[in-house]
Amino acid sequence: MYKTNTCGELTITEVGQKVRLCGWIQKSRDLGGMTFIDLRDRYGITQLTFNMETNPTLCEQARTLGREYVIQVKGTVAERYNKNKNIPTGDIEIIVETVNVLNASKLPPFTIEDNTDGGDELRMQYRYLDIRRNAVKNNLLFRHKLSMEIRNYLSGQGFVEIETPFLISSTPEGARDFLVPSRMNEGKFYALPQSPQTFKQLLMIAGMDKYFQIVRCFRDEDLRADRQPEFTQVDCEMSFVTQEDVLQTFEGLYKTLFQKMKGISMEDFPRMTYNDAMKYYGCDKPDLRFGMPFVELNDLLQYRNFSLFNEAELIIGICAENCGNYTRKQLDALTDFVKRPQVGAGGLVYIVCNADGSFKSSVDKFYGQEDLQTVAERCNAKAGDLILILCGKTEQTQKAMNELRLEMGNRLGLRSSDLFKPLWVIDFPLLEWDEETQRFYAKHHPFTAPKPEDEYLLENNPAAVRANAYDLVINGVEVGGGSVRIYQREIQKKMFQVLGFSDEEAQKQFGFLMNAFEYGAPPHAGIAFGFDRMCAVFNGVDSIRDFIAFPKNNSGKDVMINAPSSVSKEQLKELNITVNE
Amino acid sequence: MYKTNTCGELTITEVGQKVRLCGWIQKSRDLGGMTFIDLRDRYGITQLTFNMETNPTLCEQARTLGREYVIQVKGTVAERYNKNKNIPTGDIEIIVETVNVLNASKLPPFTIEDNTDGGDELRMQYRYLDIRRNAVKNNLLFRHKLSMEIRNYLSGQGFVEIETPFLISSTPEGARDFLVPSRMNEGKFYALPQSPQTFKQLLMIAGMDKYFQIVRCFRDEDLRADRQPEFTQVDCEMSFVTQEDVLQTFEGLYKTLFQKMKGISMEDFPRMTYNDAMKYYGCDKPDLRFGMPFVELNDLLQYRNFSLFNEAELIIGICAENCGNYTRKQLDALTDFVKRPQVGAGGLVYIVCNADGSFKSSVDKFYGQEDLQTVAERCNAKAGDLILILCGKTEQTQKAMNELRLEMGNRLGLRSSDLFKPLWVIDFPLLEWDEETQRFYAKHHPFTAPKPEDEYLLENNPAAVRANAYDLVINGVEVGGGSVRIYQREIQKKMFQVLGFSDEEAQKQFGFLMNAFEYGAPPHAGIAFGFDRMCAVFNGVDSIRDFIAFPKNNSGKDVMINAPSSVSKEQLKELNITVNE
Repeated sequence: MYKTNTCGELTITEVGQKVRLCGWIQKSRDLGGMTFIDLRDRYGITQLTFNMETNPTLCEQARTLGREYVIQVKGTVAERYNKNKNIPTGDIEIIVETVNVLNASKLPPFTIEDNTDGGDELRMQYRYLDIRRNAVKNNLLFRHKLSMEIRNYLSGQGFVEIETPFLISSTPEGARDFLVPSRMNEGKFYALPQSPQTFKQLLMIAGMDKYFQIVRCFRDEDLRADRQPEFTQVDCEMSFVTQEDVLQTFEGLYKTLFQKMKGISMEDFPRMTYNDAMKYYGCDKPDLRFGMPFVELNDLLQYRNFSLFNEAELIIGICAENCGNYTRKQLDALTDFVKRPQVGAGGLVYIVCNADGSFKSSVDKFYGQEDLQTVAERCNAKAGDLILILCGKTEQTQKAMNELRLEMGNRLGLRSSDLFKPLWVIDFPLLEWDEETQRFYAKHHPFTAPKPEDEYLLENNPAAVRANAYDLVINGVEVGGGSVRIYQREIQKKMFQVLGFSDEEAQKQFGFLMNAFEYGAPPHAGIAFGFDRMCAVFNGVDSIRDFIAFPKNNSGKDVMINAPSSVSKEQLKELNITVNE
Repeated sequence: MYKTNTCGELTITEVGQKVRLCGWIQKSRDLGGMTFIDLRDRYGITQLTFNMETNPTLCEQARTLGREYVIQVKGTVAERYNKNKNIPTGDIEIIVETVNVLNASKLPPFTIEDNTDGGDELRMQYRYLDIRRNAVKNNLLFRHKLSMEIRNYLSGQGFVEIETPFLISSTPEGARDFLVPSRMNEGKFYALPQSPQTFKQLLMIAGMDKYFQIVRCFRDEDLRADRQPEFTQVDCEMSFVTQEDVLQTFEGLYKTLFQKMKGISMEDFPRMTYNDAMKYYGCDKPDLRFGMPFVELNDLLQYRNFSLFNEAELIIGICAENCGNYTRKQLDALTDFVKRPQVGAGGLVYIVCNADGSFKSSVDKFYGQEDLQTVAERCNAKAGDLILILCGKTEQTQKAMNELRLEMGNRLGLRSSDLFKPLWVIDFPLLEWDEETQRFYAKHHPFTAPKPEDEYLLENNPAAVRANAYDLVINGVEVGGGSVRIYQREIQKKMFQVLGFSDEEAQKQFGFLMNAFEYGAPPHAGIAFGFDRMCAVFNGVDSIRDFIAFPKNNSGKDVMINAPSSVSKEQLKELNITVNE
C-alpha cells in the first residue's frame, strides 16, 4: 500500500502518528517561512506542512509542485494552530518528512472546485477531471449507495436479480431500437433492449416469482436535455399478485430508501386516479409539495356576455395565497408567461381579493362584485389572495394551467428540494388515440391488462378502457410506472388487434410470448423505475446527467472518447453492410 | 395476494391452518378414492389432496387438470399418513376446499423434471419451461446470491460500483467489436465494450480510488462451446496499490465467497510464477487438486542411443501413483490418448515400478534397470507407481503432458467437484510474439505495466519483459486476471510502439487515455473476473451456459426469441446503411 490513511480520516486522536498519504494537490500556499499544501483524495482533504527553517530543501521541493500533481508523502500528524472547523481533518496537519511525486499534472483546463469555471462541454471532454470535483464525485457515491440499498431491500423481500440479454430482436412498437449487425448471421440484426419487458414476463412464466434487475436500457430517440440514449432502469416483476401488492411492495422500498438515504420517515403514500390528476392538476404527475388545485368555473362564468369564456370548453382557476398585492408588472409577467408557446394560453384573467373584501379583476367589465365573490368562494380564496383563470380547449387549458401552477409554486418558494411528496397515480387509460396515425397506441405498453371490469369495452369503446396501471410520482417527477400484465393469449391477441397489428405481425414480433402464455402463464404484474431519475429526484436535482459517470451530450456523443466514430472498411465488410453515400 | 404461503414452507406446525397456495401442477395421481396433486412453485412442492367420498365434484375437477396448469387452491393443512422425508413439506398435505384454475397449459414439449427428456435445442427454444426445472432455477438463484455477496463484500471494503457506458468507440486491438450504427451521426458507429478497461482507468485518474462493476461485456468472436457473445464480468480497479494489495484484497473476496456460498474456510492461496506453471504443469492454469508435477528428464535420458529422446528439446515425466498395475490395454489407451490431434504427442514412453523394486519400460532396449531407477528417484516414484514420459518440442510437449496429466487426474478420480484449489499465477510475460503477423501482442492487454526492473529490456528484448500481471486459477480454470497498469504517458507510448502502433494510430484510438495520463494519473492496478465462469466453477460445472438465464447458441442465436432477425428497410434507411447483396 502506498498509504496508511486516507486524506479524510486523521483527527486529533492520531497526533504523533507516522503516516503515509497519497492524493492530489488541491492548492498550495507559500507563506515564506511555511508552505502549506491541501492534499485531496476521494475521502477528503488533509493539510501538509513544510517548514523553510527546519527543512529548506523539502520546502523548496514542495513549492515546485503544481495543482493536481499526484504525490505520496510521509510525515507525522500534528495538531494545528489555526484549526479549520469546516472539514473533519481540520484539527490536524501533517509535518512532512518526504515527498514522492507519483505523477505530474498539466494545468487542468478548469478549476477542480465546487464552483468550477469550466463550461459544460469542456467538463464533459475532461470528465475524468470533472469527477474529481465534490459535486460529481458525491453524486456517484450516492448512486452506488442507492443501488446497494435497492438490491438489499429487494433481495431481502425474496426478489432475485436475473440478468436478461442485451443482444435481442428488434420490435418496432414503441421507441426506435439501436441495431447491432450480426457478423455470423448475414443480413440479420440484433437490437439493444428498450427494457427487459418481455424477458421479465417470460421469467414469471418460468416460475421465478419475484424478479428484479438494475439494468441498462437503450432508446434511439432524439434527445431532450434530460434524456440519454442509454439509461439505467430498476426493473421488477412479481407473480400471483394484484395491483395492491405491487403498490405495497414498492411503497415499502421507497420508504426504506427515504429512511436510509435521507433519514426521512415517510407516511403512507397518497393515491390519485389519472382522471383526478388531470382534473385537479392538469397533468399525470402532480407536484404535491403545494396545493393550488384547479377549480372548474364553467358554470359560474359562462353565458355572461364575455365571449372568450362563452366559447371555452373549460374555464379553470387556481388560488395563489397572499398574492393579492401583485403589482401590474408582476401580473403582466404572468400573462407573458402563459402566452409563451411552450405554455400556449391565449391570455390570463385574474381576480384580486382585496383586503377590504372587495374584488378587482381584469374582467370587471363583465362580472359584478357578487359574481367575483362566488368565484372566490369556489376557489377557497380569502382576502389578500389572487385568483388566476385560464380558458380554452380542455387539454390545452389543463396543460397551460399546469405550467402556470408550477410557475406560481416556484415564485412562492413552495417547491423546496428538501421536501418529498410521493404520489401513486392509478387507473390510467389503457389506450391513447393518435390523431396523426389514426390509431390507438398503448398508453403504458401493449402487455398491460385492461381492468377486468372494463374488458367488455375493448371492442366497441377502447378509449374508455382503464388499466391497472400505475405511476409513482415524487415532487412532480415520474420516477417509475408499471401495470398488471396480460397473461392470457386470447386477451393479448385482442390487444394487438386493437393496436392495429395483423395476426401475422403480432405472431412474428411477439409470437414467443404469446406461445409462452399457453404453457401455464401465471397472473403477474410489475413496475420499473428510472434509476438515473431516482438519483436526481432524491437529490432535488433536475438533470439526470449529473448522476451518470460518462453521459452523452444532446447529439448522443461522448466527446471525451469521441464516440460514435468512423470504423474501418474491413469491419463493415465483415458485417456485410455498407454505409450509404 | 393470491396466496398466503409458498409451496415450500408449510410443516407440521401449521397443521389446521387455512391457507391459499398457487403454483404449477408437477404431477397428479388418481388412486380412485383419492387424487393427489404435487403443486410446485419456486420454493418447493406441496401435496394437495382431493377425496372422492367427501367432495366428489371437486375431486372430479382436480382430475381434469393437466401437468403445468397454474392453479390457486384454498384448503387446510393436515398431517400426512405417508410422510415423505425427501422434501421439507413432506409431513403435511393440503385438504383442498376450492380450486381456481388461473391458466391452462398445453402439454410441455419436455418433462419438467431434474432428469428431463428434452434435448438442448428444444430446452433453449422453451427456455421459460427449462427454468422451471430445479437444476436451472437453482443455478439462477445461486448466481443472484453470489452477485449479492460480491457486491456486499466489495462495497464493505470501500469499493464503489460505477456504471460505465455501453455505447462507446471501436478499438480494433483485441477481439472483434460489435458495432452499433448511429442514426444521429451519419456514417459513424458506436461499439459495445469488450470490457470497461479504459473507463475504469479513467475513473482512477478521476480519483475514484476503488471501483467495481458487475457488468455485461461483448465480444464478436466465433463461439466455442463455453463462450457467449455477451458475458458478465466482475470488473475492479484500485489506486495507490501494488500487486500485493490487489492479491490480498481479492483473495479476501474469494475466501468470503467460499465461506458464504460453500461453507468452506480457505487457507491462504498459493502463488506460482508463470514460468513455474509452464515448467511443472505445462499450462498457465494448473489444476492443483492433485500433484503429478512434470519432472524434466533430459539430463538422465539423452545421449543414450535412443534417437527420439536425443532429438527432443524436452523430455518430461509424471508419476501416476499406484498405477503400476495398468494393463497393456490401459497403457495402449493412454498412448492413443496422447496421439489424438488435440493432444498432439508422437507417442508415450512408460516405466512401471514393480512391487519387487524392478522396473519395466517401453524403452528397456535403451535403458538398464539402474537408469530407470535414477528416473524413478527423480520422479519420486515408489514401487507400484507408473511413470509416463513425453518428449519433443518444448511447447508441444508441455501442452501434451498437461492434457495427459489432467486425463490421469480424471482417471484416478483426483478432480472432485467438491474440492477447491485456488492458485495465483503471477509474473506473466508482458508480450507474446505472433509468428503469423510477425509482431508482438500484449499478453494481458496494452495497458499492463512492465515490471519496473524489466523496463530497460522493452526496447531491445521485449520478449523477456515480465509484467506485474496475475491470474486467479481455481481447479484448473482461470476465473480472472489483472495487472498493474501503466500510468505514465511515456511508457504507454513506448508500449504502443512495441505493439507496432504508429503514434498517429495510438493517438487516434487511445489518445483520450494518454492525454488523461498528463493530468495527475495515480498508480493503479486491477482485476476482472468472468462472472458466468465463477458461477460454474463454484458449482464444479464446466459449462457457463447453465448459469445464464437466456444464453445464445454456438451460432450466436437466441432460438427462443429468434434473434438476430431481419429488420425493416425503413429502419436501415434511417440508419443510413445497406445490407450487401
